[in-house]
Amino acid sequence: MDPTAAPSSGGTPADADATGPTNTTVTLPLLTLRDVPRLPSALASPSPAAAVPNPISRHPYFHPPATFYISPGDVTLRHAFFDLASAAPSPLVAYRRAGPRGDIAVDPAAARAALVSCGGLCPGLNTVLRELVVGLQELYGVRHVFGVAAGYRGFYGADEDHVRLDPAAVNDWHKKGGTVLKTTRGGFDLAKIVDGIVARGYTQIYAIGGDGTMRGAVAIFQEFKRRGLDISITGIPKTVDNDIGIIDRSFGFQTAVEIAQQAIDAAHVEAVSAVNGVGLVKLMGRSTGHIALHATLSSRDVDCCLIPEVDFHLEGKGGLCEFLHERIKKKGHAVIVVAEGAGQELIPRTDDQKREQDESGNIVFLDVGTWLKSELGRWWKREHPDELFTVKYIDPTYMIRAVPANATDNLYCTLLAHSAIHGVMAGFTGFVPGPVNGTYSYIPLEDVAVAKNPVDVNDHKWAWVRSVTTQPDFLKSQV
Amino acid sequence: MDPTAAPSSGGTPADADATGPTNTTVTLPLLTLRDVPRLPSALASPSPAAAVPNPISRHPYFHPPATFYISPGDVTLRHAFFDLASAAPSPLVAYRRAGPRGDIAVDPAAARAALVSCGGLCPGLNTVLRELVVGLQELYGVRHVFGVAAGYRGFYGADEDHVRLDPAAVNDWHKKGGTVLKTTRGGFDLAKIVDGIVARGYTQIYAIGGDGTMRGAVAIFQEFKRRGLDISITGIPKTVDNDIGIIDRSFGFQTAVEIAQQAIDAAHVEAVSAVNGVGLVKLMGRSTGHIALHATLSSRDVDCCLIPEVDFHLEGKGGLCEFLHERIKKKGHAVIVVAEGAGQELIPRTDDQKREQDESGNIVFLDVGTWLKSELGRWWKREHPDELFTVKYIDPTYMIRAVPANATDNLYCTLLAHSAIHGVMAGFTGFVPGPVNGTYSYIPLEDVAVAKNPVDVNDHKWAWVRSVTTQPDFLKSQV
Amino acid sequence: MDPTAAPSSGGTPADADATGPTNTTVTLPLLTLRDVPRLPSALASPSPAAAVPNPISRHPYFHPPATFYISPGDVTLRHAFFDLASAAPSPLVAYRRAGPRGDIAVDPAAARAALVSCGGLCPGLNTVLRELVVGLQELYGVRHVFGVAAGYRGFYGADEDHVRLDPAAVNDWHKKGGTVLKTTRGGFDLAKIVDGIVARGYTQIYAIGGDGTMRGAVAIFQEFKRRGLDISITGIPKTVDNDIGIIDRSFGFQTAVEIAQQAIDAAHVEAVSAVNGVGLVKLMGRSTGHIALHATLSSRDVDCCLIPEVDFHLEGKGGLCEFLHERIKKKGHAVIVVAEGAGQELIPRTDDQKREQDESGNIVFLDVGTWLKSELGRWWKREHPDELFTVKYIDPTYMIRAVPANATDNLYCTLLAHSAIHGVMAGFTGFVPGPVNGTYSYIPLEDVAVAKNPVDVNDHKWAWVRSVTTQPDFLKSQV
Amino acid sequence: MDPTAAPSSGGTPADADATGPTNTTVTLPLLTLRDVPRLPSALASPSPAAAVPNPISRHPYFHPPATFYISPGDVTLRHAFFDLASAAPSPLVAYRRAGPRGDIAVDPAAARAALVSCGGLCPGLNTVLRELVVGLQELYGVRHVFGVAAGYRGFYGADEDHVRLDPAAVNDWHKKGGTVLKTTRGGFDLAKIVDGIVARGYTQIYAIGGDGTMRGAVAIFQEFKRRGLDISITGIPKTVDNDIGIIDRSFGFQTAVEIAQQAIDAAHVEAVSAVNGVGLVKLMGRSTGHIALHATLSSRDVDCCLIPEVDFHLEGKGGLCEFLHERIKKKGHAVIVVAEGAGQELIPRTDDQKREQDESGNIVFLDVGTWLKSELGRWWKREHPDELFTVKYIDPTYMIRAVPANATDNLYCTLLAHSAIHGVMAGFTGFVPGPVNGTYSYIPLEDVAVAKNPVDVNDHKWAWVRSVTTQPDFLKSQV
Repeated sequence: MDPTAAPSSGGTPADADATGPTNTTVTLPLLTLRDVPRLPSALASPSPAAAVPNPISRHPYFHPPATFYISPGDVTLRHAFFDLASAAPSPLVAYRRAGPRGDIAVDPAAARAALVSCGGLCPGLNTVLRELVVGLQELYGVRHVFGVAAGYRGFYGADEDHVRLDPAAVNDWHKKGGTVLKTTRGGFDLAKIVDGIVARGYTQIYAIGGDGTMRGAVAIFQEFKRRGLDISITGIPKTVDNDIGIIDRSFGFQTAVEIAQQAIDAAHVEAVSAVNGVGLVKLMGRSTGHIALHATLSSRDVDCCLIPEVDFHLEGKGGLCEFLHERIKKKGHAVIVVAEGAGQELIPRTDDQKREQDESGNIVFLDVGTWLKSELGRWWKREHPDELFTVKYIDPTYMIRAVPANATDNLYCTLLAHSAIHGVMAGFTGFVPGPVNGTYSYIPLEDVAVAKNPVDVNDHKWAWVRSVTTQPDFLKSQV
Repeated sequence: MDPTAAPSSGGTPADADATGPTNTTVTLPLLTLRDVPRLPSALASPSPAAAVPNPISRHPYFHPPATFYISPGDVTLRHAFFDLASAAPSPLVAYRRAGPRGDIAVDPAAARAALVSCGGLCPGLNTVLRELVVGLQELYGVRHVFGVAAGYRGFYGADEDHVRLDPAAVNDWHKKGGTVLKTTRGGFDLAKIVDGIVARGYTQIYAIGGDGTMRGAVAIFQEFKRRGLDISITGIPKTVDNDIGIIDRSFGFQTAVEIAQQAIDAAHVEAVSAVNGVGLVKLMGRSTGHIALHATLSSRDVDCCLIPEVDFHLEGKGGLCEFLHERIKKKGHAVIVVAEGAGQELIPRTDDQKREQDESGNIVFLDVGTWLKSELGRWWKREHPDELFTVKYIDPTYMIRAVPANATDNLYCTLLAHSAIHGVMAGFTGFVPGPVNGTYSYIPLEDVAVAKNPVDVNDHKWAWVRSVTTQPDFLKSQV
Repeated sequence: MDPTAAPSSGGTPADADATGPTNTTVTLPLLTLRDVPRLPSALASPSPAAAVPNPISRHPYFHPPATFYISPGDVTLRHAFFDLASAAPSPLVAYRRAGPRGDIAVDPAAARAALVSCGGLCPGLNTVLRELVVGLQELYGVRHVFGVAAGYRGFYGADEDHVRLDPAAVNDWHKKGGTVLKTTRGGFDLAKIVDGIVARGYTQIYAIGGDGTMRGAVAIFQEFKRRGLDISITGIPKTVDNDIGIIDRSFGFQTAVEIAQQAIDAAHVEAVSAVNGVGLVKLMGRSTGHIALHATLSSRDVDCCLIPEVDFHLEGKGGLCEFLHERIKKKGHAVIVVAEGAGQELIPRTDDQKREQDESGNIVFLDVGTWLKSELGRWWKREHPDELFTVKYIDPTYMIRAVPANATDNLYCTLLAHSAIHGVMAGFTGFVPGPVNGTYSYIPLEDVAVAKNPVDVNDHKWAWVRSVTTQPDFLKSQV
Repeated sequence: MDPTAAPSSGGTPADADATGPTNTTVTLPLLTLRDVPRLPSALASPSPAAAVPNPISRHPYFHPPATFYISPGDVTLRHAFFDLASAAPSPLVAYRRAGPRGDIAVDPAAARAALVSCGGLCPGLNTVLRELVVGLQELYGVRHVFGVAAGYRGFYGADEDHVRLDPAAVNDWHKKGGTVLKTTRGGFDLAKIVDGIVARGYTQIYAIGGDGTMRGAVAIFQEFKRRGLDISITGIPKTVDNDIGIIDRSFGFQTAVEIAQQAIDAAHVEAVSAVNGVGLVKLMGRSTGHIALHATLSSRDVDCCLIPEVDFHLEGKGGLCEFLHERIKKKGHAVIVVAEGAGQELIPRTDDQKREQDESGNIVFLDVGTWLKSELGRWWKREHPDELFTVKYIDPTYMIRAVPANATDNLYCTLLAHSAIHGVMAGFTGFVPGPVNGTYSYIPLEDVAVAKNPVDVNDHKWAWVRSVTTQPDFLKSQV
């Protein structure tokens, strides 16, 4: 950035005066459009193989205006805020805007779509599936849509794993929790999967899952390229923890934060109703504390929020116990929210537990809630043997995962699924649809597959949580 | 924009090939920072009168890192997406990022804040009030905070209109619907209001209300300037309809969309359970159809969504009746959502109704729901005299307005109120805090006061609704 | 009753002393068992045609103990309380207890059941239908179960009005509001109905509906008898208003009272948030005020509850306006609940409205809520022209009717449906199953068809409401 | 009973014929009124010390009719059903009907009431407290009402344990979960308690708690008698488990069953969404399975319901594993509800656990849910090592306990509290108010204190559950 852009104050905008709003002008760095790949047939020259007007234009009731279709120049900025004074500003990055194109590159009559879902439950999953089916058929007239029942392994599984889906079959799925397609983990065998996709004649793959699923989708995309197949693949991130980056948030997250309020309310009531009562709620979040953080900011009854991104300690100066004691003395009770991934390094492990790994090869998580409840009880009994003390521990995980999506998430899942369809019909592949600063965009799959989304504890937002709860920052130097 | 920026395809990014994501580089136009005014004392030279380190830094438990405080160069872009191919690209506009500053320009001990709310109920209003009180006291140590009970007129009303508020008094307000401070409309007398503010020694005014309230705040801001008063005023838009521009959305809106689902669900059940049943739901939205639109996209049970931004007609080709008839024949029932401001010009008015005006001088709204119910019944009876037909009409307005904010809105209201406080303590005035593309920012009050936020029916999003419901576009040419 | 039964205190029990509980003995009047009719084949001598052990006894997992089956002597008292001192005590009446019998009189393999539902929506209707299907098949192995789609008229309608139902088809009906079988009113043609039943070979009719449906069922029962048909009919009262007598309450009533709380809460919030605010809620109840009464007792935010059983007047001494004025002066707001059938004789009717009748020949109901809102506004404007006043009117009827049953009603509907099945399989006919003082019983259809269930305004319970709200009793003598 | 009463069929009613309902007459046994004690002053002769007309009669708006007041002959039958054919019919027992009396025996101006609550949280507790305060003051003008903060021990505790309560203070308590008065267990010291009551001049004690609290109230009642004190005590059973007998049900129970549906729904969704999925929900119920039973009957998604009253076994013929395996093979998943007191004798205990006792001296409960989850996993892995299997375990206890009462329970708590007040003002003592077969009655405290309320597994109702779930009966003979 040109430091002369903001002339009066060393590279930053001048102070405004009180006479009203003021304007200052600066020069921006170059913008890089990070574009998504296309199908071989969509790149055919002089014109794409199937390029035809979008069939949406022929709808009997609905006559799209010119502005309905996304133009080739429509882009979204990855970062909508920055520090003008930063010495070395990041290059600006943009993505293609999602939405219907005036011409499509895929023949709807020949299209054959497969929907596959991997991993755990997440509110909204059924809505995404429903809208993929409804959108493909009602907007584009794609009639061959199949659900693959057992995750990626279903591609090389039995025929009954592939269920024909149509709008009548999925009509009320968006009001149901869980997943109507059963879901499993593991079973990724690249060659077998691609062979199975080819054998069944699929031309479009919609893969819904977490970061492992996204990495699998990248591998499938690359294998399609290697074999020169004209099959598109799109990845739809499913992670209630909201731990995938670039996109604004993952679906189901808002619903999870909403339902978490019930658990926090209950913990608060239990804490308030007891003498020296502590309510303890464990919320989802293995590597990131987004649910815990948002639930804390939404509730305002939480005294302390523990997340994986911030180390904490129990005893000694600046520790949790000291803080709790102060809160209980002041208010008579306290409420703690802990993300499941927090404090894992504090919990003693048996040798077995040290060796144990989950299906993805990660060390298994121990229950931080049970451990914390027990440690707090021990601490109080030692320090205040004659005073009553109660910890009520609530783990609402399965009650949160299983609910249907709320209105916000249902809308989100609808636009997400339709974005995916529009991109695929336009001939894009190897991409992820998702909102970037509020605008639905197409992002390269390989970028999303490696993008983490930790709570930025150096950012203002986390600081705000701390200013809301005024909880300790557990600085090591204070121990 | 430099058309040569995207060299290979006439000013727009080149087509990507299938070998993976591609990068294209373009040059952006100049950026204009639209800054907010400051208090006279904050502009004093060589240094602001009260400039002192932010007291948040002295918290016993919480030690803000350097990145906690907003730097003078932190800005947010007003538009995070644009069309690179556009012939005349808009100049880019940025706002200051909201949040705490390292130095404050206001002495907390001398500060005296007044909170005033005007207009109707809106979910989250009590949360905003609560957080203003809690944030002022707990973050900055401002102890003199008052609620003004009867809108702007309260400033020149009786002393009992001014209620001292502290964290204990407002503790559970965020769990209550409505407003604990009573609210009224009208009563704007500029001289009396400013006299009253001065007489009571207020140094900070937080005005919460709709577009009329924002225009009032602009006038008060200008009168402060004219008189040279060192009093800041900030406006917090309160409009459940989401009809104020620039900010991403107004508080309470998501809650309204959520609760509207219950009414739509009920209308859907009634419609499905009857022979040729129509469920009709009227939702809030006098000049804009955002709630109707979002509720429709969230629900997926709606066949037709009527909003003020789109004219419609009942009979004849392309009309609502023709469409309804087709839907009923096909599915046996239909669900209509209508925004309260839709179709006002279609409803016959008596001479009295033509003359009648509301407190703001607008022509009064007639009940489009009752009218539509009656018109549809008349039409069916005339066209299908021997067939059963039922319209069940639901007006959930007061049941929506009165609920407490959901988690999403509670978090929003919390960050909104804290943003307002941080700005005021930094010496800003005449501003509105609010999220712009997801980042909390400070926007000049006078810009927000005139920024409408209609549903852009030429935009992709409205088109998507139409593609979701495949409802008619009611083109005049088709009548 | 023998007045000498309670020797020490003139026919009533003696006063207890403080030394502990005391016992007094009295003689009761004779008890009359009011028994239900049986099918001709169940009365065959020497033994019923099909008498065989109940197939429930042959279940692979579940081995009923001897006490599982209802014995011939199991009866329920109609009245579980009475006044021992009453000069002329009512004769005591008992009904047969409902439940499975050790021997059944119907051959499950030959049984053919029809389920028919008439009238409006009611929470729990789908649960009753589901449980009839599931119970008939899973408990007794009855495989021919049909839903009749369009009320009684469906019996002589087209074949597609008869839908084969099995447990898989009805599996999640208990979680759905409304009715999966469409429902209509009217169309009662006795001869055609019975002809249709005979033509289709039905042997069991389950008729679900209001008092008109019950009277229809009596007529069908009598026609079966006249023709000597071996077909049983049972009536299941469906009236969300709870206006059918003898049984403890009708299904859906508790759900309605629960959901009504949301409307009352909203009205309360609106009233509290306004200056001199009145919240007005209209609840279901054409001839009885049970929902209004229970919702009032549950909510505790209601100042006045108006029901059809009690006349009221607006102006003058002891009138509603005087009472409202006092409440508003005292508390600043007031909440009114009005049953839809209240005050009908106060509302002015046009000549057309005087002539108009509904399908059952009753004079049409006018909207007491709209009328009351307007009258209150007029009164206040006249009496207090310079004071603000707001009435917010909420009509939640369709939002209440359409919800799924709550847990209490789902359990009730389950036991009700199973009671009906057990009775039919035992050879009973012309009966209604239902709880009497908490115990499921069989009551003659003709008794239920004429049993009204008004709120007894001379009883303690209504008096309690009045003592809870301390609302006026609107005595005529006070006008 | 006279066996000749039912002449035609050996002591039981004759079969009805098909010509319509029939009547049969029988003679009933003698009725015993089980009366409650009175205060010494209420027994004074010739007339009670304070006997005066009920002040309710002097209300400005509400003029009770003659029938408002309960007459001395108003009684309720303890059993509203019986078997006429039973060889030795139980003697019939009746209780006094609850409600206001025309004359009261207590001087409201001199009355001084203490409310005390012991034990855990229960939905509705705050409503009972609220209504005691409101009813005492608004109905009878009793102005000295105190809440005792720490259970029975509060009577001999510090002065700050006694909080003056009035209608304004308790206004919205019925909308809050938990208890506004903190609650504890233990601390029963009879002499100190009665001394404390006397020292503070209380004349009315309202004790709310479980069976231990009721036994404590009996002891206090007897000590009052022994000392000749004119102080009344009434016990209000608080047990969310519904394990206290004679009364129809305890408050909070219906709310608990309602909220339990959310946990069962979630478990069902988790089970359905997994391959061979089992959802396991632990519900409250240490000695009785009422919540588990009712939640099962309400939900209809439960395959097996395990309660303390029925032994079960896991492996072998007729065991839980065999049953589960069959269900999973048939439906692909299964849902189990287990009451916390079920299967305690099956869980292996360490020596420590064998010795450990809770505050009441009972052996501590082990977590049957965790144990069952682990046992089922072990069984499946052993028997089906190559097949996927998932158990999702949900313990919603604290989320259920902490909610506010639903409408049904709020109404119940209101009538319960008012019943208690009316009884105390009439001069009764040593009693429990509660519904008996639907009618509010007064029952001697000492009878309620010893009345257990197990699920009667020989009764029809439990049999119905088993017929609904067709779960095994775990007969020992089948192992």
